[in-house]
Formats: sequence, C-alpha cells, structure tokens
Amino acid sequence: MNGAETLVRTAVAAGVDVCFSNPGTTEMPLVAALDSVPGVRPILALFEGVCTGAADGYARMARRPAMTLLHLGPGLANGLANLHNARRANSPLVNIIGDHATWHRAADAPLASDIVSLASPMSGWVRASASARMLAADMADAIAASLTPPGQVATLIVPSDCQWDPAPDAGIAPQRSQVEGRAQVEGPAIDRVAEILRKKNPATILLGGAALDERGLKAASRIAAACGCKLMTETFAARIERGRGILSPARLPYFPEQAIEALSGAQTLVLAGAISPVAFFGYPNLPSSLVPKGCEVKVLARPENDVVSALESLADALRAPANVTVPDPAPIPAPTGKLTPASLGAALVNLQPEGAIIMDESATSGGPYGAMASAAPPHSCLALTGGAIGQGLPCATGGAVACPSRRVIALEADGSSLYTIQALWTQARESLNVTTLLCSNRAYRILQIEAARAGHAEMGRNTRQLTELAPPEIGWVNLARGFGVPAVRVDSADGLMKELARALSTPGPSFIEVPL
Amino acid sequence: MNGAETLVRTAVAAGVDVCFSNPGTTEMPLVAALDSVPGVRPILALFEGVCTGAADGYARMARRPAMTLLHLGPGLANGLANLHNARRANSPLVNIIGDHATWHRAADAPLASDIVSLASPMSGWVRASASARMLAADMADAIAASLTPPGQVATLIVPSDCQWDPAPDAGIAPQRSQVEGRAQVEGPAIDRVAEILRKKNPATILLGGAALDERGLKAASRIAAACGCKLMTETFAARIERGRGILSPARLPYFPEQAIEALSGAQTLVLAGAISPVAFFGYPNLPSSLVPKGCEVKVLARPENDVVSALESLADALRAPANVTVPDPAPIPAPTGKLTPASLGAALVNLQPEGAIIMDESATSGGPYGAMASAAPPHSCLALTGGAIGQGLPCATGGAVACPSRRVIALEADGSSLYTIQALWTQARESLNVTTLLCSNRAYRILQIEAARAGHAEMGRNTRQLTELAPPEIGWVNLARGFGVPAVRVDSADGLMKELARALSTPGPSFIEVPL
Repeated sequence: MNGAETLVRTAVAAGVDVCFSNPGTTEMPLVAALDSVPGVRPILALFEGVCTGAADGYARMARRPAMTLLHLGPGLANGLANLHNARRANSPLVNIIGDHATWHRAADAPLASDIVSLASPMSGWVRASASARMLAADMADAIAASLTPPGQVATLIVPSDCQWDPAPDAGIAPQRSQVEGRAQVEGPAIDRVAEILRKKNPATILLGGAALDERGLKAASRIAAACGCKLMTETFAARIERGRGILSPARLPYFPEQAIEALSGAQTLVLAGAISPVAFFGYPNLPSSLVPKGCEVKVLARPENDVVSALESLADALRAPANVTVPDPAPIPAPTGKLTPASLGAALVNLQPEGAIIMDESATSGGPYGAMASAAPPHSCLALTGGAIGQGLPCATGGAVACPSRRVIALEADGSSLYTIQALWTQARESLNVTTLLCSNRAYRILQIEAARAGHAEMGRNTRQLTELAPPEIGWVNLARGFGVPAVRVDSADGLMKELARALSTPGPSFIEVPL
Repeated sequence: MNGAETLVRTAVAAGVDVCFSNPGTTEMPLVAALDSVPGVRPILALFEGVCTGAADGYARMARRPAMTLLHLGPGLANGLANLHNARRANSPLVNIIGDHATWHRAADAPLASDIVSLASPMSGWVRASASARMLAADMADAIAASLTPPGQVATLIVPSDCQWDPAPDAGIAPQRSQVEGRAQVEGPAIDRVAEILRKKNPATILLGGAALDERGLKAASRIAAACGCKLMTETFAARIERGRGILSPARLPYFPEQAIEALSGAQTLVLAGAISPVAFFGYPNLPSSLVPKGCEVKVLARPENDVVSALESLADALRAPANVTVPDPAPIPAPTGKLTPASLGAALVNLQPEGAIIMDESATSGGPYGAMASAAPPHSCLALTGGAIGQGLPCATGGAVACPSRRVIALEADGSSLYTIQALWTQARESLNVTTLLCSNRAYRILQIEAARAGHAEMGRNTRQLTELAPPEIGWVNLARGFGVPAVRVDSADGLMKELARALSTPGPSFIEVPL
C-alpha cells in the first residue's frame, strides 16, 4: 500500500466516489491508485476549468463533495475561475493537486510554482502533505473541511513522493465529530426577529443559500402569510427550487439602482441564509451597500446556520398557518414565430420536464425565462454565483453526473460558453443527459450595456472590437459536433419547440443553437 | 483626461502598441480609453489563456512587451498557466488587471478575490494602483519592470475608480535609466572560462536564453571549433534560430536518465544563458540535478547577462576562427505513404518557407521533426517553456501578430491544443498567417509513457480512462471550422504535402489534422 492508495481508500470510505480530473506526471501514482483501489469513478475533462466547474455542479446537486485531481500550479490555475464560483456558492469540494516530490522542490523545475499562493484565494482550507503516512489523515481532514457549513473548497497539495512512498494500511473516514453540522439559531434570536415582524412595519426577508430549498421556501411563505412582510431572494443563488406549487419570491435585481429601488421602503431587512447585499460592481455615485438608508439589517440565520429550521421556528413563533397555497401562475402559451429571449423562455417553460436541473448562465438573454420559470414543473435552478463566466457547461456536466435520472438543461450565453466549451466532450464521453440551449447574440452584450451606462452613447471602434463576437461568426453546430455532441441550429420558435422536445426525449447530450 | 487615458498614453509613448484582451465591467474605462487615445491595437480573445499566451509569443518574436487587459482575479486566473510559461521563457509582458473600485473592495462583492496572491507566483513584479494620478507612473514602472533583463511578467492591478477618476494630462515613457540593459560579463570571468576550455579536458557548454539567436550560436560554433568542447542547448528554449547555415547543437534530452547520459564525461559544464539543468520531474532513485557527479559547473553568463557578447568575447579569447562553416545537412526526401511522426517532420522540413516561425507544442509527436529541422530553411523555433500545456496555439497567434510578414506554423499535440483551442478564432478574426498541424494520436501519450516508466506494464481501466482522448473522437475539422479557420484532414504523407503546400501559400489561418 502506498500513500496514493490510502488517499483513495479514505475518499471511498467517506463516500467521495467521483473524481473530475486532468492529471499529469505528478499525479500518476494517484491515477494508478484509482485502478488498484476500486470505488471512485474517474471522469476526464479536456481542461481543468471543466473539472472544477463540474465538481461545483456535482456538489450543488448531490450536496456532498466530489474530488478533483489536477496537475501542479498551472493545472490548478486553469481551474481557479470555477473554484471562485464554487467558493461563492459555498459548495463542498476537495481539490487534490499533485506536486513535485518534496526533495525535488528546491530544484525549481520548469513546472514548479507557489501552489499555496495560487490556491488560497479560492479555497477555505489549504494544506500541503508532508509524508505518505499522513496522506490518509490529510485526505480525511480535507473532506471534513469541505463539509464545514455552509461548505467550502478544500485544497490538498500532494507531492508525488508522498503518493508513491509506502504507507500504513489505512482508510480513515472523517469522524462525525470532525464534521460539524449546521449550527442552530437559538430561540431568543428567532423571537427577536418575530417581534420585529409582528410590528407590521415594512420588512423584507432576503432569502439565500440553504433557505432556497423547498422546505425553506415553504416556511418563508408561511412567514409572509402571517405578517405580510416582503420576501426576496439573493440575485445569484447556488441552487433554488422553483416551479408550480413552490413560492417564487422576487429576485434582488442585478443593477444597483434597481436593487436599491426594490429594497426601498423596508424599515428592516432580515437576512435568512443570505449575506447583506452589495453591488456586483462599484459605479461612480452609487454606494457599495444596497441596503437603503435608514433600513436596519437583522440576521435571522447566517449562511452556515440551519436556516431552514430557523425559518420554520420563526413561522411557528408568528403562529403562521401550517400550509400556504401557492397560486398556480397562468400557463405560458407555447411560442411561435420569431426567436427572442421571450419565446426562448416560453419554449423552455413549456417543455422542461418535472425535476429538470436548469443551469442558467444566460447573462442578458435569460431574463424572460427567469420571470416565467415559476410556471414550469418543479425543478432546480443553478446560477453563476461568482461572476466568473465559463461556469455553465461544466456545472451542468457535474449536475448530470450527480443526478443521472434528471434532465439537465444549460441555458447558455455565447460568450460565457466559449470559456469552457470543452465541457461538451465530457458530456459526450459520459453520455450525460444535458441539453445546451445556446443563446447566440454574437456579443458580450452586458459590456455593451455597461458602456452605455457609463455614458458612451456610441461605442467606438475599439470598444466594438472588444465586445462583439463576430466576425467571424462562431459555427456552433460545428463546435458541438466536433466535441461529439449532436447539434442543430433553429431559426424560429416553432423550430425550437420541435428540436427541444426531440432533444429532451433523447438520451445523452444535445446542443441547440438559438440565434437571438 | 482620466486615469485610464494616461495609462494608455504611457503605453503608446513606450511603444507598447498591442493589447490582447478579454475585458469585463471593471475594465470598461480602459476599453473606452483605447478609443479616445489612439495607438494601441486591441485584439480580442475568447479566453484569457489565449491573451497571455499570445502576449508571450509576441514578446518572444518582437522582443518587446505587449499588454494584456484582463478581468479581475478570475480573468487573471484563466491566464495564469500561460503566464507561467512566459515566466519560464523570461518574456517581457505587462498584464493590466482591472479591479473593483478602491472603495468597493471592502464589500467583498461576488467577483472580489486576492489578486496579488494569484498574480505573484507567475509575476516578477506586481503592483496595485492606488489613485488615478499615479496611473501613468505605475504603467511606466510596469513596462520598465517587464524589460528588466532577461525580461519578466509585470502585473499592474488597476481599480476601476483609478481608471475613471480625473488625472493630470500625462504620458510618461519609461526613462532609459529605469530600464537596465543586460549586464556585461567582465573580462576576468571570461578569461577564467577560457582557461578551463584551453585545457582541453572534456567540457560541455550549455546554451540557453539569449544565447540561442544567430549571433550567439555563431559565437558558440567558433568556441567549439577553437577548443573542441561539446555544445548543447537547454531542453525547452523560448526561442532558438535554426535551419541551414545555423549551428544546431544537440538538445539536452527530456528524460533525466538520458540527460545525465548526454552530459556524462564532461568534467566542466559551462552555463551560457542557461540555468544549471534539473530534471523536469522528480522520479524515485533519480537525482534532481542533471549535472553528472564530479562535473564542475561554471557560469559564463546568467540569463540576465549579455550572453551573446560574452560568447563572442570568449571566442576571441580562445583565438577562435572568425567564421566557422556549418556543413549543410543532407536534404530530407519528401515523404510519401503513411502518416507517421517521421513523415510529418519530413513534410514540414521540406515545405516550411524561409523565416518561418515554428511553434512546437507537439509533445511526443514532434521528435523526428526536431531532429530534422536543421535541414530546413532558417527559421525561429519556440518551445513550451514551462510545461503548462495549452501554450502553442496562443503563442503562435501572438508570434503572427508580431511578425505579419512571416509564416507561423504551430506543430500541435491534440491534448495540448484542446486547452486553448479558442485561439483559432482570434487567428481567424485577425487574418493571421498561422497554419496549425494538429498531431492527433488520441491520447495524452506522454502520460501513458510515464505509466509504463513507473512499472505499470499494463494500464488499468481507469488509467486508460484518464489518458485516452477517445471515444468520442475529437472532430478536428469541425472544431477548426467552428472557430472560423479553414480545415482539412489528411490521411497520407502525400496528402499532407499537398495540403500543407496549399495552406502555406494561402493568406490567413489554416488547420490540418494529421492523424498519427
């Protein structure tokens, strides 16, 4: 038994049974250990950003960590942007980064770099292993760290000699005691919030994180029914349950002017699993905090607390009705005619099956769908949490690995999907049930909107050069087929309805270009 | 005038006139400044790894820096792997990273991260600007830092308020005094090396860095003619001049056993622009240093020294002949029949035009070409310096921007090119004369070789899963066309000769899949 084998045994014992990887020479003993120790499914990606984004999507849906296996500093670096998103999603995730043998580090070989410095900004926990005999315990600690509420990125750097050196026969699962559960919010804290809400002064509850599952949203609807407060959700939720029968609070708008307007009038802002809202970007003459002046912020539950139980206790304290009927939204007619963001949204709402997983990285094209999604059958929706584009296709890939019986639909912006388009190949190799709806508007539209907001009524030539995605036009159908995914381009809403219905009833991945 | 405009004016004044970018909201004032201040050519890439790799290729060919413009921590992170390669190539390069407004940092908005921690491992110089009025000087310092011999990556972090705030009308070019030239090696140091070489004990001169230009190689050939020493080049050269009439020393082999063997017998190893050689990876029972036991290492010139002048002085001190004729290698017959690494190499040697730029990221497929390249017309060859794959297509792109009148040929491994395949789109948009020869062996072959070296005679199922690139097979022609580059697949050496000849006589990019 060598160090690598004890690491894999520890993973298996802890239930970490999926590894998204693009390995190199310094990881080969761990790759060999995936053969000698059964129990972990290795999934190859053509680029590390796919590995980390997939691990994020897996964690959001499975609610437990997958591992990644990446090659030294540069391999980790390629995965950092999606680790950034995973960090903002509070996703549990264990990165294993191979490194040069401990005795080879001083040589400063070509692939050497400061891995701790690279890993730290996007990790809640970082450790470099020092010996083969500590590797099982290091892995157990990494898994436990990843599961520390509300979940975090844990990065373990494993020198290659620690992998190949002999190690005691081990397989240490993280002990229950090592993994803390979510801390309960205590009664007096709940009573204080109940007292505020009973006063019937205008209050808004901002729901985020774990509050956005079905139980949390049900408890929130009871609270609103009892005291008439307003409910909102954070702008970019790692995962929210949506659809008919599920309360669908308004989402805090993206632009700060609109967010401040949406929160205006509230005398109290109650945070339930969400953090105090801040502007996505700073703009001249606009504040960082979106909390209106004079509005008091009260924390019901922090992201790491058991926010669902806190909401249920709050509902009980308010003597809220046990059940609140969520009215069925009006059905959305099937679209016909021209392809627009609205007809795209209507097509999706009409065709997405019950239990779908919608990965929404549609940027400016997905607004109408978001507004209609409560009319769809119940489903999970995942958002771009950290603003680092290129998350959608990898995250959809990981979600499909976690939930093979559910349909995954990636609603994708063109600019964003080009960052990690290699994810399509992994979807094809693993025969994952992912359908990509590629919203092609041939621009980084959000940047053109920002240019206009900044007062540039007309874009200059160089601004256009840096924000337009054509010419040349991306040949989406060619790209998807090149990566092994069947693909079509539609040119009308009727065509989209037909092709989307076909895609969703066909096993394996599919790709539909939707020119907008 | 705002801060962003003073930064761009400073760049223009210093001759930094190309910007490889994928900007975001925090860079929009700089994007606008590229319109209001003429003189910098903005080049969009679909992924930041293309920007940084292109800036590296540009620097290697232009021998001066381009700038990149990247979006916050995640945008920089996506570019880090190729910055790692640029660092190992000692390429001068100026990264401009937009950041949140200084007053917005405390909000820890979704895209915030520790940019300094991310930048430092791959940068020789890092600074975060503090105000608009310092931006011109900060940019001048960054450019000067990038040019500090032997060249380095300089990263300037520019908060968005420093971009949009008013700034004094400025345009500070780096003063000559700020940019140090390469330090000369002093006479006594050269005499000491000359004395060693005169003794005619077995000696090897290891040439690297700036020694690999035509003047350096000519001086080295004079030295070898005078004293009979052996010449070798570092394994992965940022840039080396090659071809008929140019001395072509043997390359230090990649695997440590072979490298140690190649250096064995030398009593002295003289370093000329190269660093003391170390193993690319550490292996059980092999040393880090490749210098044989008992062999003394003498430094003629460090990478930052004026190594070419030092070699010329050394040749003079040895009373070497003024000119040494490099014998013409036997011509390589045009290949016919089956596609193999050897027939691929022969086709390229026969068809590459004079002054070609060969970007060699061919991994295991390019060995035969490397051995034949001295029979080709004079050309420049760029290698993967830092081992972070995904460098070839971006680096070729930047080389073509730097040298529009030269033909660029990217000899590419399939696994490597999939890392940053988006570079093809930039080649198409900018109509760059880059021909990609895609060596498709459908595997990370080097890892399969490493598995065999580690004693795994037969690969297990999971090892195969993580090292094979099919199924599904990559549809290379579709991929290239999807990014706007004309593409064909050849199935014989004759077909390759025909298609390569056609590609090299057609303006703009082209792509040839070579199944091996």
